[in-house]
Amino acid sequence: MHFSAKLEEIAKAIEEMRIRGATPIARAVAEALTLEAEESRASTPDEFIREMDGAARRLLSTRPTAVSLPNAIRFVMLRVLSAYRNEASLDELRKTAIEAGREFLRRVDEAKKVIAKIGSRRIVSGDTILTHCNSSAVIAILTEAKRQGKDIKVIATETRPKFQGRLTAMQLAEAGIPVTLIVDSAARFFMKKIDKVFVGADAVASNGAVVNKVGTSMIALAAKEARVRVFVAAETYKFSPETIIGELIKIEERSPEEVAPRDFLERYPSISVRNPSFDVTPPDYIDLIITEKGVIPPQAAYLIIQSEISEVGYEDYMKYTTYLEES
Amino acid sequence: MHFSAKLEEIAKAIEEMRIRGATPIARAVAEALTLEAEESRASTPDEFIREMDGAARRLLSTRPTAVSLPNAIRFVMLRVLSAYRNEASLDELRKTAIEAGREFLRRVDEAKKVIAKIGSRRIVSGDTILTHCNSSAVIAILTEAKRQGKDIKVIATETRPKFQGRLTAMQLAEAGIPVTLIVDSAARFFMKKIDKVFVGADAVASNGAVVNKVGTSMIALAAKEARVRVFVAAETYKFSPETIIGELIKIEERSPEEVAPRDFLERYPSISVRNPSFDVTPPDYIDLIITEKGVIPPQAAYLIIQSEISEVGYEDYMKYTTYLEES
Amino acid sequence: MHFSAKLEEIAKAIEEMRIRGATPIARAVAEALTLEAEESRASTPDEFIREMDGAARRLLSTRPTAVSLPNAIRFVMLRVLSAYRNEASLDELRKTAIEAGREFLRRVDEAKKVIAKIGSRRIVSGDTILTHCNSSAVIAILTEAKRQGKDIKVIATETRPKFQGRLTAMQLAEAGIPVTLIVDSAARFFMKKIDKVFVGADAVASNGAVVNKVGTSMIALAAKEARVRVFVAAETYKFSPETIIGELIKIEERSPEEVAPRDFLERYPSISVRNPSFDVTPPDYIDLIITEKGVIPPQAAYLIIQSEISEVGYEDYMKYTTYLEES
Amino acid sequence: MHFSAKLEEIAKAIEEMRIRGATPIARAVAEALTLEAEESRASTPDEFIREMDGAARRLLSTRPTAVSLPNAIRFVMLRVLSAYRNEASLDELRKTAIEAGREFLRRVDEAKKVIAKIGSRRIVSGDTILTHCNSSAVIAILTEAKRQGKDIKVIATETRPKFQGRLTAMQLAEAGIPVTLIVDSAARFFMKKIDKVFVGADAVASNGAVVNKVGTSMIALAAKEARVRVFVAAETYKFSPETIIGELIKIEERSPEEVAPRDFLERYPSISVRNPSFDVTPPDYIDLIITEKGVIPPQAAYLIIQSEISEVGYEDYMKYTTYLEES
Amino acid sequence: MHFSAKLEEIAKAIEEMRIRGATPIARAVAEALTLEAEESRASTPDEFIREMDGAARRLLSTRPTAVSLPNAIRFVMLRVLSAYRNEASLDELRKTAIEAGREFLRRVDEAKKVIAKIGSRRIVSGDTILTHCNSSAVIAILTEAKRQGKDIKVIATETRPKFQGRLTAMQLAEAGIPVTLIVDSAARFFMKKIDKVFVGADAVASNGAVVNKVGTSMIALAAKEARVRVFVAAETYKFSPETIIGELIKIEERSPEEVAPRDFLERYPSISVRNPSFDVTPPDYIDLIITEKGVIPPQAAYLIIQSEISEVGYEDYMKYTTYLEES
Amino acid sequence: MHFSAKLEEIAKAIEEMRIRGATPIARAVAEALTLEAEESRASTPDEFIREMDGAARRLLSTRPTAVSLPNAIRFVMLRVLSAYRNEASLDELRKTAIEAGREFLRRVDEAKKVIAKIGSRRIVSGDTILTHCNSSAVIAILTEAKRQGKDIKVIATETRPKFQGRLTAMQLAEAGIPVTLIVDSAARFFMKKIDKVFVGADAVASNGAVVNKVGTSMIALAAKEARVRVFVAAETYKFSPETIIGELIKIEERSPEEVAPRDFLERYPSISVRNPSFDVTPPDYIDLIITEKGVIPPQAAYLIIQSEISEVGYEDYMKYTTYLEES
Repeated sequence: MHFSAKLEEIAKAIEEMRIRGATPIARAVAEALTLEAEESRASTPDEFIREMDGAARRLLSTRPTAVSLPNAIRFVMLRVLSAYRNEASLDELRKTAIEAGREFLRRVDEAKKVIAKIGSRRIVSGDTILTHCNSSAVIAILTEAKRQGKDIKVIATETRPKFQGRLTAMQLAEAGIPVTLIVDSAARFFMKKIDKVFVGADAVASNGAVVNKVGTSMIALAAKEARVRVFVAAETYKFSPETIIGELIKIEERSPEEVAPRDFLERYPSISVRNPSFDVTPPDYIDLIITEKGVIPPQAAYLIIQSEISEVGYEDYMKYTTYLEES
Repeated sequence: MHFSAKLEEIAKAIEEMRIRGATPIARAVAEALTLEAEESRASTPDEFIREMDGAARRLLSTRPTAVSLPNAIRFVMLRVLSAYRNEASLDELRKTAIEAGREFLRRVDEAKKVIAKIGSRRIVSGDTILTHCNSSAVIAILTEAKRQGKDIKVIATETRPKFQGRLTAMQLAEAGIPVTLIVDSAARFFMKKIDKVFVGADAVASNGAVVNKVGTSMIALAAKEARVRVFVAAETYKFSPETIIGELIKIEERSPEEVAPRDFLERYPSISVRNPSFDVTPPDYIDLIITEKGVIPPQAAYLIIQSEISEVGYEDYMKYTTYLEES
Repeated sequence: MHFSAKLEEIAKAIEEMRIRGATPIARAVAEALTLEAEESRASTPDEFIREMDGAARRLLSTRPTAVSLPNAIRFVMLRVLSAYRNEASLDELRKTAIEAGREFLRRVDEAKKVIAKIGSRRIVSGDTILTHCNSSAVIAILTEAKRQGKDIKVIATETRPKFQGRLTAMQLAEAGIPVTLIVDSAARFFMKKIDKVFVGADAVASNGAVVNKVGTSMIALAAKEARVRVFVAAETYKFSPETIIGELIKIEERSPEEVAPRDFLERYPSISVRNPSFDVTPPDYIDLIITEKGVIPPQAAYLIIQSEISEVGYEDYMKYTTYLEES
Repeated sequence: MHFSAKLEEIAKAIEEMRIRGATPIARAVAEALTLEAEESRASTPDEFIREMDGAARRLLSTRPTAVSLPNAIRFVMLRVLSAYRNEASLDELRKTAIEAGREFLRRVDEAKKVIAKIGSRRIVSGDTILTHCNSSAVIAILTEAKRQGKDIKVIATETRPKFQGRLTAMQLAEAGIPVTLIVDSAARFFMKKIDKVFVGADAVASNGAVVNKVGTSMIALAAKEARVRVFVAAETYKFSPETIIGELIKIEERSPEEVAPRDFLERYPSISVRNPSFDVTPPDYIDLIITEKGVIPPQAAYLIIQSEISEVGYEDYMKYTTYLEES
Repeated sequence: MHFSAKLEEIAKAIEEMRIRGATPIARAVAEALTLEAEESRASTPDEFIREMDGAARRLLSTRPTAVSLPNAIRFVMLRVLSAYRNEASLDELRKTAIEAGREFLRRVDEAKKVIAKIGSRRIVSGDTILTHCNSSAVIAILTEAKRQGKDIKVIATETRPKFQGRLTAMQLAEAGIPVTLIVDSAARFFMKKIDKVFVGADAVASNGAVVNKVGTSMIALAAKEARVRVFVAAETYKFSPETIIGELIKIEERSPEEVAPRDFLERYPSISVRNPSFDVTPPDYIDLIITEKGVIPPQAAYLIIQSEISEVGYEDYMKYTTYLEES
Repeated sequence: MHFSAKLEEIAKAIEEMRIRGATPIARAVAEALTLEAEESRASTPDEFIREMDGAARRLLSTRPTAVSLPNAIRFVMLRVLSAYRNEASLDELRKTAIEAGREFLRRVDEAKKVIAKIGSRRIVSGDTILTHCNSSAVIAILTEAKRQGKDIKVIATETRPKFQGRLTAMQLAEAGIPVTLIVDSAARFFMKKIDKVFVGADAVASNGAVVNKVGTSMIALAAKEARVRVFVAAETYKFSPETIIGELIKIEERSPEEVAPRDFLERYPSISVRNPSFDVTPPDYIDLIITEKGVIPPQAAYLIIQSEISEVGYEDYMKYTTYLEES
C-alpha cells in the first residue's frame, strides 16, 4: 500500500458520496494530503514522492467527474513535485506538502469572503433577487449586501427534490432579509418582478458553461428571455480544465426515492425515476461569473484555466487530471 | 330570491373552490341551470326568464375569472333567450333550457373523445412525450395512441406542489405505457430526448396564449429553445372571449401550506409563500392546439371565439360575460 | 366635370397635404361625398351614379397610398351601388349616399370612445406606460384609465422632428397624469421600467404589420427584447385591404427643413436629409391591436379585412381600391 | 493642503463638468499630474510621493464614475510608485512623473491615428455607413477611408438633444464624404441599406459592454436584427477595470432644458424630463471593438484590462480605482 | 368494377409516380373524373353515384399523402353529391360532374395567372430575387414583373439532386432576366445581396407551414436570419385540410441513384443514401403566401381551409379525405 | 534574383493554385524555405538573410489571403532573424532555418494526431454525426473514435460542386463507420436526428469566425436552431492574425464550370455563375474549436493569436503579414 489507511478512509467517503459537493470534496482532499504528509513514514525523498503520488492517484480515482478534486490535488502535488525537482530534502518536501495543503484550505475560506464582497457590489437597494438551491457563496453575497444597508428582497425556489430552498429561506430570514418561497416551476411566473438572478456553481467548464443544481438552466433561460441578469458565484477551484483537453463533464444521478416514495415505485414497476443532480447552463444565459479573482464574463472562463496551465506547464498539469489514456 | 336553494348550493361550492377546474365548473354550471329549469315554479314565460337570468347571474358572480363558466352559461341562456324572443310557451322554454343543459354536458363528454382521436394522430411509434401535471385530455390522447398499437414512452413531471404528476404516471402505467417521473425543474435536462410535449389547458386566450398549471410556460420555453413541438389539448369551452373585450385573465393563488409545512412558516414569519396555480404560455411557444373542432395553430384561437360571437350576435353575447361596467 | 367644385377643393386639400393623417382624411372624404350627394343636380339615377363615381375616383386619385381613403369611399359608394342595383329612385340614392356618409362619420367618432373603453381595461394601477408621438386614441385610453381611478405614469418620447410628444405630455398633464418626457433614442434606456407600450397607427396591413410615426418600430423592437407588451390602438378603417391584393404600403417623406435649418442645409450642399414620416413595425413585435371591434392579435388583421370583402363581394370591393391595372 | 491650487482648479473643472468626455478628462488629469510634478516644492522623495498621491486622490474623487480618469492616474502614478520603490531620488521621481504624464498624452494622440488606420481597413468602396453622435475616432476612420480613395456614403443621426450629428455631418462634408442626416428614430427605417455601423465609446466594461451616447444601444439592436455589423472605436484608456471588481458603471443625466424649453416645463409642473447622456450596449450587439492595440471582439475586453492588472500587480492596481471600501 | 379501365390507368400512373407534382396530380384527377362521367354507362342516378364514388375512392387510395389529390376530388364530388341530394336526374348529374371537372381545370389555369399578377406587385425595380428549384408559379411572377418593365436580377440555386435550377435559369434567361446560378449551399453566402426570396410549394399545412423542395427550409432560415422576406406562391388547392384533423404530412423519398452513381453505391455497401424530396418550412420563416385569392400571412392558412369546410359542411367534407379510420 | 529557381517554382504553383488548401500551402512554404536554406550560396550572414527575406516575401506575395501562408513564414523567419540578431554565424543561420522548417512540418503532422485524440473524446457511443466536405482532421477524429470502440454513425453531405462528400463517405466506410450520403440542402431535414456536427476549417478569424467550405455556415445555422453542437477542427496555423490588424478575410471564387457544363453556359450567355469556395460561420454558431493546443470556445481564438504576437513582439510579427501599407 502506497498511502495511509486514513487517506483510504477519506477516499472511501468521497467514493460513497458521504463527502459530496465541490467545496467539501476540495477541502477533504487538501486535508487528506496534508495528513498523509504529516504522518508519512517515508525515509527518502523518492519514497515520499511515491507515497504522495499514490495518495493523489487514489483520491483522483474516487470521483473522476468531480471538478474540484483534481484542482485541489494539483495545487498540492505540483508544489511538491517542483520542490523535488529542485532537490529538496525529505523534510523540505514534507513541509512543502503540508504548507500547500494548508494554503489551499486558507484560500478556500478566503475565496468566499472575497466573493461576498465583490458580488455584493452588484446589488443595489430595492433589488428583488431570485436564487435557486442553497449556495453558501450566494448567501454570503446577499448577507453582505444586507449588512451594507441595502434593502433587498429575495425569492427562493424550494428546489426539489431535497428542498434546499427552505434552508436558503431560513438562512436569509435569520439575516433579516425578507424571503418569498415558491415552487421551482413558478420561476418564470415571477421573472418580470426580478431584478437579478444569483446562483452558485458546482463546476464551470472552459467555455463558461455552468454546472449547477438541476433547474438552474431553466431559470437562466427564463431570465435570458426576460432580459434579467444572471450572476454565478464560483470559486476558481470549480473551473474545469478537463474540458480543455476534450472531456465532457458528466452529470451524476441520485436515488429515485428522493423523487417518489419507495412504496409508490414498488407498486408501479413500469414507473421509473430519473433524478439528475445537476444541469448545464450554456454561457449565453449567464451574464457574469463572480470569482475571488474578480468578475468575469463566462467567455473568460477559459482564461482562468489557461493561466493556471501556463503557470505550471502543460506536462505537469496533465499529471493529475482525471483523464486516463486508453491502453 | 330569484333562483333555487340548490343552485345557490352549487354556486357556493364553486365560490369556495370545492368545485374547481375548467371542466368540473362547466359541468356544474350546466347541471345547475338544467336543475333550475326542471324544478322551476315560474308560472309565466317572463317569470321563468327572470328566474333563469337570476340563476345565471348568480353563477357568473362566483368566479369572475373562470373561463369555462360564462361559456357554459351562454350556451344554455342564449338558447333560452332566443326561444323567448320567438314567443315560446313556458313549457317550451323549460324544455329548451333542459335540453341545452344536457346538450352542453353531452358535448363536454364528446369533446374529450374527439380530442383523444385527433390528438393521437399526431403521435408516431417511437415517440418520447413529455407531459406536465394531470390533464385528462392528454391522458386520453396517450392512451388512445397506445390502443392504436403505437409504441410510446412518457416523461411526466411530478408537478409541485400537489404532485399531480404521480397520478399521471399511475394512469399511464395502468394503460401499459412506460413512464419516467422527474422533478419539474429537470424538464430542460431531458428536453433533447423528447419528441413532443403534450399539455392540457385551463383557458385559452383570444391571442392563443394558454393558461395552464404553473410551470407549463417554462417547459414550453425550453421546448421552443430545443425546437420540440408543443401541443395543447383544450376543449373549445375553455376559450376565453373576455380577452377580446379587453379583460385580462387573472391567475388565482392557493394556500402557502401546499408549498411549505405550516410550522415551518410559523417559525419564520419573514418567510412568505407565493403559490400561483397557473401561468400563461405565450402563443409563440405553442405549435398547435388540439380541440374537438380540429387542430388549430394558436393564432386561430381568435377565430374559435369570433365565430361564436358572430353566431349569437354581439349584444346577446355580451349579456353573460364576467365583464362588469364600472358604475 | 363629373363632380362639384367643392369636392375638387377637398380633393386638392388632400393632394397638397393640407388635410393629412388617417382620421382627418377619412372624415374629409366622407364629408365630401355627403356634400356631393346633397348638392347633386343629377336628374336621373344613372346620372347620379356617374357623378358620385366620378367624385369617388377623383378622391381616390389624391393620395393613392392613404389607407383610410379607399375605406371611407367604399363605405359610402358600395351602399349607393347596392341601392342602385335594387333599382332605387334618384331620391333614394341621394338619401342612401348622405346617410352612408353620416353613418361613417358617426362610426369614426364612436370608434375612438369604444377603443378608449376597451383599451383602458388592459391597464392596471401602478403601470408605467411608454407612448410615442401623439395618438388621440392612446390619449383617450390613458385618460379613460385615469378616470377609472387607475394610478398610472407615462413616459412620452418627444418625437422628432415635430415634437408631437410635447403635445402628448401637455394633454396628459391636463388629465392629471404624471408624464416624463424623454428624447426618442432614450426609449431602450428606460424600457426595463416600462410595463406596457401604447401607440397609435396610421395603417394596419393585412399581415398585422403597423405603419406609424417613424421610430415606432425601434421602440417595439426594444420592447420585444425586454418582453414588454406592445399595444396598438387602431380603428378598423385604418386596416389596409390593398396588401391583400399585393400592393405595398408606401411611406411618404416630408420636408428636410423639419430636420435641419434651411441655412445649414444650404451651406453644406453635400449634406442631404431623409425624413420619412412613418415606419413599419412587423407583427412579431406587436402583442395586440385594440380596435372598436375588440382586441385582436396582429395575425387576425387579415380577418378584419377579409370579413369586409366577403360581405360586399370581391367584385364590388375591387371597384374602389387604389390599385390601378397597368394599361 | 497636499497639492497645488492649480490642480484643485482642474479638479473643480472636472467636478463641475466644465471638462467632460472621456478623452478631455483623461488629458486634463495627465496634464494636472505633470504640472503638479513640475511645480512641486517637495524636498524629499517621501514628501513628493505624499503630494502626488494627494493630487491623484483629489482627482479620483471628482467623478467616481468617469472611466478614463483612474486609467490616466494609474498610468502616471504606478510608474512613480515603482521608481520610488526602486529608491529613486527626488529628481528622478519628478522626472518619472513628468515623463509619464507626457507619455500618456502622446499615447492619447497616437491612439486615434492608429485607430483611424486600423478601422479604415474594415471599410470597402461602396459601403454605406451609419454613425451616431459625434465621435472623433469615427470621423478619423471615415476620413482616412476617404483619403484612401474609398467611395463611401454616411448616414448620420442628428443625435438629440444636442444635435451633435449636425457637427458630424459638417465634418464629413468638409472631408468630401456625402452625408445624409436623419432623425434618431429613423435608424431602423434605413437599416436595410446600411452596410456597417461605426460608433465611438465613452467606456468599455470588462464584459465588452459599451457605454456611449444614449440611443447607441437601440441602433445596435436594430443592426443586430438586420445582421448589420457594428464597430466601436475605443482607445484602451476607456476600458473600465472597475467592472472586474464588481462596480457598476453609472449613467449621468443632464439638464432637462436640453430636451424641452424652460418655460414649457415651468408651465406644466407635472411634466418632468429624464435626460440620460449614455446608454449601455450589450456585447452581443457589437461585432468588433477597434482599439489602438488592434481589433478585438467585445468578449476580449476583459483581456485588455486583465493584461494591465497582471503587468502592474493587483495590489498596486487597486490603489487608484474609484472603488472605496465602506468604513 | 365500379369504374372504368381508363380511370384505373390514371390511378396507376399516379401510384407509380409517372404522374407527380401537386398540379399534374390535381389536373389528372379532375380529368379522370370528367372522363368517368362522360363515358359512364350508369342507367340510374344511384348507379352513377356509386360509380363516381368508387372512382373517387380509387383515386384517393393512390397517394394518401398528396395534398392536391383530395382537394381535386372534393371539388368535383361534393358538387355531384349536392345535385344528387337535390334529386337531380342522371343527365343532370353527369353534366354536373363534367362541368365541375372542367371548372376545376379552368381554375387551376386561372390561378397561376392571378398569382403571377398579384405576386409581381410585390417586386420593385432593382430587386435581386433568390429562388430555389423550379416553380412555374414563381417563374410566372418573375416573368410578369419583367413584362411590366421592372428591372430585376435573379439568383437561382441549382437544386440538387435533379438540377431543376438549371431549368429555372433557362426559362428566366429566355424571358430576358439576368440569372446567376449558384450551388444550393451558397444561399447564405449571397443572402445579404438578396432583396426577396420567392419559392413555390407542394403543400401548405393548416398552420401555414410549407412543404416544398428539400432545402427550402434552410434558405428560409437564412433569409429570416438576414431579415430578407420570403414569399411562397401556392394555389389554394395545395392547402392541406388533413392537418386540421390531426394527420401529419408525410415526406416522400426518391431513388439513391439521384444522389450518387449506382456503381459507387455498389462498391461501398456501408454507404447508404437518404434522398427526401421535400422539407417543411415553419410558418415563422415565411412572410406571405401568394394565392389566387390574395396575399395572406401564413397564419391565415387555416382560414383558407376552414372557409371551404364551412361552405360544404363538415360531414361532406370528411367524405373524401385521405384519413382512414383504424378498423 | 534574391532566391532560387526552385523556390520560384513553388511560389508559382501556389499562385496558380496547383498547390491549394491551408495545410498543403503551409507545408509547401516550410519546405520551400528549408530548401532555400539548404541550397543557399550566400557567403555571409547578411547575404543569407537578404536571400531568405526575399524568398519569404516572394512566397508572401503569392496568395495574400491564404491564412496559413504567413503563419508558416513567420515560424521559420522569426527564428532566423532572432539568431541573426544574436550574431549567429552563416552556418548557424542556415541550420536554424532548416531546423525551423522541419520543426514546422513536424508540428503540422503532430497537430492532426493530437486533434484526433482530443476531438474523439467529445464523441460518445451512439452519436450520429453530421459532417460537410472532406476535412482530414474530422476524418481522423471520427476514425479515432471508432478505433476506441465507439459505435457511431455519420451523415455526410455530398458537398457540391466537387462532391468531396463522396470521398469522405469512402474514407469513413473503409474505417468501418456506417455513412449516409445526403444532398447539401437536406442538412436541416436531418438535423433533429443529429447529435453533433464536426467540420474542418480553412481559416479562423480573431473573433472566432470560421472560414470553411461554402455551406458550412448554413449547416451551423441549422444546428444552432436545433441546439445541436458544432465542433470545428482547426490547427492553430490556420488562425488568422490579419483580422487583428483590421484586414478582412477574402473569399476566393472558382470556375463556373464546376457548377454547370460549359456548353450550357455558352448557350445561355445571360446566365452567369458565382462559385465561392468558402463562407464564414459566425462564432455564435460554433460551440468549440478543437486545436492541437486544446479545445477552445471560439471567443478564445483571439488569445491563440495574441499569445503568438506577444511572444515574438509586435514589430517582428508585423514583418511577415500580408498587410501592405499604402504608399
